[in-house]
Amino acid sequence: MTTEQRRRKLQDDLIDAAESAIAAGGLSALHARDLARSVGCALGAIYNVVPDLHALVFQVNSRTLAMIEGQVATSERLEVGAAVTPSDHPATVTLARLALAYFDFAASHTMRWRALFEHHLPGGQAMPDWHLAEHRRLFLNIETPLRAMVPDADATTCMLLARSLFSAVHGIVSLGLEEKLVPLPLVVLRQQTVTVAAAAARGLAGAPVALLRLPPATQESNV
Amino acid sequence: MTTEQRRRKLQDDLIDAAESAIAAGGLSALHARDLARSVGCALGAIYNVVPDLHALVFQVNSRTLAMIEGQVATSERLEVGAAVTPSDHPATVTLARLALAYFDFAASHTMRWRALFEHHLPGGQAMPDWHLAEHRRLFLNIETPLRAMVPDADATTCMLLARSLFSAVHGIVSLGLEEKLVPLPLVVLRQQTVTVAAAAARGLAGAPVALLRLPPATQESNV
Repeated sequence: MTTEQRRRKLQDDLIDAAESAIAAGGLSALHARDLARSVGCALGAIYNVVPDLHALVFQVNSRTLAMIEGQVATSERLEVGAAVTPSDHPATVTLARLALAYFDFAASHTMRWRALFEHHLPGGQAMPDWHLAEHRRLFLNIETPLRAMVPDADATTCMLLARSLFSAVHGIVSLGLEEKLVPLPLVVLRQQTVTVAAAAARGLAGAPVALLRLPPATQESNV
Repeated sequence: MTTEQRRRKLQDDLIDAAESAIAAGGLSALHARDLARSVGCALGAIYNVVPDLHALVFQVNSRTLAMIEGQVATSERLEVGAAVTPSDHPATVTLARLALAYFDFAASHTMRWRALFEHHLPGGQAMPDWHLAEHRRLFLNIETPLRAMVPDADATTCMLLARSLFSAVHGIVSLGLEEKLVPLPLVVLRQQTVTVAAAAARGLAGAPVALLRLPPATQESNV
């Protein structure tokens, strides 16, 4: 192996080791010393191939986003049951299925999923652009049905509403899985998630589009 | 002062000091040594009047819940603007106002508000009953309009839906204030909160009540 090949191999091994650590014990289980032991390198060698552990977390979170994308890709098969009705807009059904896919992912990969939200760069630094772009791609799964549902709303409005709908579903899933309000069986929490997600979508579909426009000032900001 | 009066005074002083610390710097700013210095007692004297710092956090969080209740009590004055329409059920307007009151509280008392959610007892212990009862009382503010909106839904259904609606609004407010997805001006975040809260309420009002019934198994569980 050339030096560059060895470097790449160590990098890949470190990402794999970081992924195992986070999947098993969350962000707080990520320690440089354990990673070095796991891949068989010196502690200092880690920092020859990655600037810091944050860089590894971004790589692991990137894999997690890809897993969520995979779950979303198969969400058409999910049964939304009584949460939607025959009179609902097809986009309501799509959004309800996305909520279920998100719930299922979070419930079965809780540590990985938490790492997406618990990871903060020191000093309020922004995440790297390539990783932000992955987030944006994932949100397109929500924006597309929203655009079909409120065709007159502009791109900024749909972008914001997609994030707000996501945040609403995330709130139900995360407070629910943390058992913060009331400990619920997963099957009930799943039903609550899809019921409120479908209701929010139905309520947006039923709102005059004018409601969804933002004040002009917002359109100019860099969101 | 009798011994008991001195004890009570030290207890009250400690709660006040803990409240100031949390309001200024959040849970992570709560340190026994600082509290002792602030009230002018020995470090060990704290533990003569409270079992541990968790007990102080519950007292502070209790005051925070009372402040939220106060904000809710004046929410009738809040202007929901275009988020609701004349054809919406009056309970949709009430629920939209509650979402705004919650947003306003979280935005203006962020540290206190975060402490409600960041506080965890070690070893997964449950919070004391008196504090749980305060949470339940606060949720009645959501359950009451929900019951008016879906009069055929039973008490358990309304209880669960109230918590899920709250969680949805909480998700928008908390990811928004953390600037986790996209940094938004507060005025836009506030508008997103009320728009999605009103949509979720509208969507529930428009759903057949049968949707909202839970499987019989749930009715028997201890939620």
